[in-house]
Amino acid sequence: MFKKVLIANRGEIAVQTIRALHEMNITAVAVYSTADKDSLFVRLADETVCIGKGLPGESYLKMGAILDAAVLTAADAIFPGYGFLSENEDFAELCEEYGIKFIGPSSKVIDLMGNKSNAKATMQRLEVPTIPGSDGYVTSLEQAREIAAEIGYPVMLKAAAGGGGKGIRQANNASELADVYLTTKQEIKLSYGDDRLYLEKDLSDAKHIEMQAIADQNGHVVYFPERDCSLQRNHQKVIEESPCAEISAAERAELGQIVANAMVGIKYENTGTFEFLMDRDHHFYFMEMNTRLQVEHTITEEVAGVELIKAMIMVAAGLDLPFTQSDCGVKGYAIECRINAEDPRRNFQPTPGKIDYVWFPFGTKGVRIDSGIEMGDVISPFYDSMIAKIIVHMPTKAAAIQKMVRVLREFKIQGVQTNRQFLIDLLNDEAVQKGEFNNLYLEQQFLKEWVSHHE
Amino acid sequence: MFKKVLIANRGEIAVQTIRALHEMNITAVAVYSTADKDSLFVRLADETVCIGKGLPGESYLKMGAILDAAVLTAADAIFPGYGFLSENEDFAELCEEYGIKFIGPSSKVIDLMGNKSNAKATMQRLEVPTIPGSDGYVTSLEQAREIAAEIGYPVMLKAAAGGGGKGIRQANNASELADVYLTTKQEIKLSYGDDRLYLEKDLSDAKHIEMQAIADQNGHVVYFPERDCSLQRNHQKVIEESPCAEISAAERAELGQIVANAMVGIKYENTGTFEFLMDRDHHFYFMEMNTRLQVEHTITEEVAGVELIKAMIMVAAGLDLPFTQSDCGVKGYAIECRINAEDPRRNFQPTPGKIDYVWFPFGTKGVRIDSGIEMGDVISPFYDSMIAKIIVHMPTKAAAIQKMVRVLREFKIQGVQTNRQFLIDLLNDEAVQKGEFNNLYLEQQFLKEWVSHHE
Repeated sequence: MFKKVLIANRGEIAVQTIRALHEMNITAVAVYSTADKDSLFVRLADETVCIGKGLPGESYLKMGAILDAAVLTAADAIFPGYGFLSENEDFAELCEEYGIKFIGPSSKVIDLMGNKSNAKATMQRLEVPTIPGSDGYVTSLEQAREIAAEIGYPVMLKAAAGGGGKGIRQANNASELADVYLTTKQEIKLSYGDDRLYLEKDLSDAKHIEMQAIADQNGHVVYFPERDCSLQRNHQKVIEESPCAEISAAERAELGQIVANAMVGIKYENTGTFEFLMDRDHHFYFMEMNTRLQVEHTITEEVAGVELIKAMIMVAAGLDLPFTQSDCGVKGYAIECRINAEDPRRNFQPTPGKIDYVWFPFGTKGVRIDSGIEMGDVISPFYDSMIAKIIVHMPTKAAAIQKMVRVLREFKIQGVQTNRQFLIDLLNDEAVQKGEFNNLYLEQQFLKEWVSHHE
Repeated sequence: MFKKVLIANRGEIAVQTIRALHEMNITAVAVYSTADKDSLFVRLADETVCIGKGLPGESYLKMGAILDAAVLTAADAIFPGYGFLSENEDFAELCEEYGIKFIGPSSKVIDLMGNKSNAKATMQRLEVPTIPGSDGYVTSLEQAREIAAEIGYPVMLKAAAGGGGKGIRQANNASELADVYLTTKQEIKLSYGDDRLYLEKDLSDAKHIEMQAIADQNGHVVYFPERDCSLQRNHQKVIEESPCAEISAAERAELGQIVANAMVGIKYENTGTFEFLMDRDHHFYFMEMNTRLQVEHTITEEVAGVELIKAMIMVAAGLDLPFTQSDCGVKGYAIECRINAEDPRRNFQPTPGKIDYVWFPFGTKGVRIDSGIEMGDVISPFYDSMIAKIIVHMPTKAAAIQKMVRVLREFKIQGVQTNRQFLIDLLNDEAVQKGEFNNLYLEQQFLKEWVSHHE
């Protein structure tokens, strides 16, 4: 087992990783930017190295500085978390060259899955169902039109290099396609220096269903109950739940087998998440794979009854998975809300600033609050605006929502505006409670009404 | 269902009850003493009534003031919690007379079980195994000697009116018995105005095993996995765990059936706990029944996967239990530590005072912290010195202890001395980790060594 692990991240994920390391008797090294020098994760770490200034490009994205810190502190391994360098194949490769274990998949697999077109082709080869569309990139408007005519409008044009909802455009007919094709190509050329596009059938009336899995180096693979992450705004997840009430045990097992086979097929090591669209007829279509831990892994921990950061560290160290497939069945229902420093009435604009007072309503069965924030901290404009993840785990969805609403009501904060009331209103929405929503429901229906009531 | 419930208690149990009520959409009324006017439970309640001064006798024990507050606020029911009036049959009877539902058993049953000698006789009739000893009270030293000779020394003399370890004395032979008989009788006459004594075989090398059960008004009874509460000091529980690793599933089911039958036999309504001694051969001996919720109900909630305060309220309102026996099997392992404002180096003397700073390490899977304390609060000399209950729920005992130690190490407090380091040292003790301890282990072995190391 590793003696010392460096965490190439900040905030709540750094805090939870330090805790996992301490429970495993491993020394935790934090790297931090000057903006984070007084943060909880810096205080909790055993050793700390300042790697630069507040801007991510000057600290948490500086591969050299992070590797230097690992060498300096003699860390055996690096935990990447989510965001920053967590899906950067160059960073994973540098770790491999330095002989420092990257706690995640190999650089090769990150590279393969990081390119959406290659990822899709790979999944097709492994018999994972994918979204009908171009076979690789579209090389001309002509070709795009032919494919669109074949699979039917509406279609989506997507940048090979895009992500997080960026570089994606819809076209409802051939004339729109012509416009969108040209403007998207120009835009992404500017943004990414890469204008390759692919075309897919638009599956707007679908749910975002994702399934996480983990594989060790010794041939064991386990998949976890799916998460329904359909409640999104601007392609960012707002509320996540597990399991998806609409999915049967048989469907779960079938999807799980597909996912587990794909993990083996790409020789995947450690954890990753397969994101699917699920249409009304419960057909699943692979969208992309996240080759890292996700923010919402918490609800999977609750429902499956496992600890994922610890499992990732064990797997990276060459140990067997600490659980089997049969340990990871659905146990109750879990939901996560992300409390952000943002103003829902102003298009969710981040509201950085000093937190003069904060009180988290931890306590009672089924409540978990993961945060990296303390009273007096500053929500910095340099980073995402998340203050805390509130996770509720109960036997039923109804009971979990009741508890989540109570917790959100009790939560107290002064100094920055948050999305707390928006989350409460969303949880009190009938369609949300009944699970009757698709990917677009929050943005195109709920939010429009909500905004009109709060103007 | 009730519309409004008054909580005749304070601190963390009042906080957790208000939360349960809010999740059930019931209005929560807090009564409070002047010493508690700025407490968290007062802030969280929907309505509040000041019932007197800091001394319990001038507020939380004043039946009239509490009932007046219930009438004034038109509360349908009273939740008693633990301590104070929770096992007072007169208070339960007054509630019955006022037509306000006492959330607990009937005054008759509280009375029956509150008298240890009657309780023992009742349990014998219901075929619950009891400790060999006098059949009712001993009326003379002569009689005490005869019984002691029959069941064998050492024996214990116990006050009918005692409790919490008070009014209990050991005798190792006939000559000691003579001394102890007279002095105990005098002492308890002074303390309780009641000098009735009974005599029992001394089961010193035994574990304190207790089993909680709950019955609704419609004939349903459910028992829960047992708790091992053997780690005690001065007859106060320090660490509680569930289940007891030494007890097999078959033994659990057998004990559970005995407990469930007894619940039916005494027509018990709501929740109560049967306390047993378990000797090395796994024979169980009934000690007493607590006719109320206990501090350590939290670990039962975790292991059984239920919420007990909510279930108590539902049962009191005449609803069916929200779970069945088969829902309440053992799921993992849970442990609770009580963080108190006390100084273990000075015989655990309470250390009341102002909490200048407190930081609770909530977060990560399996951690629950129930507290009624906030920064700036004063631990009052009027009440017990508990700051928080830390509960950890994990698949195994080893994993739970690792996590508990990590949480205790992270916990930060300034202003008052606590038992935190003592708890960490106790959890790191090999006998504690292996479950190789009896009722006396903490006090007679661990503590003596610990004190000698900390002088």
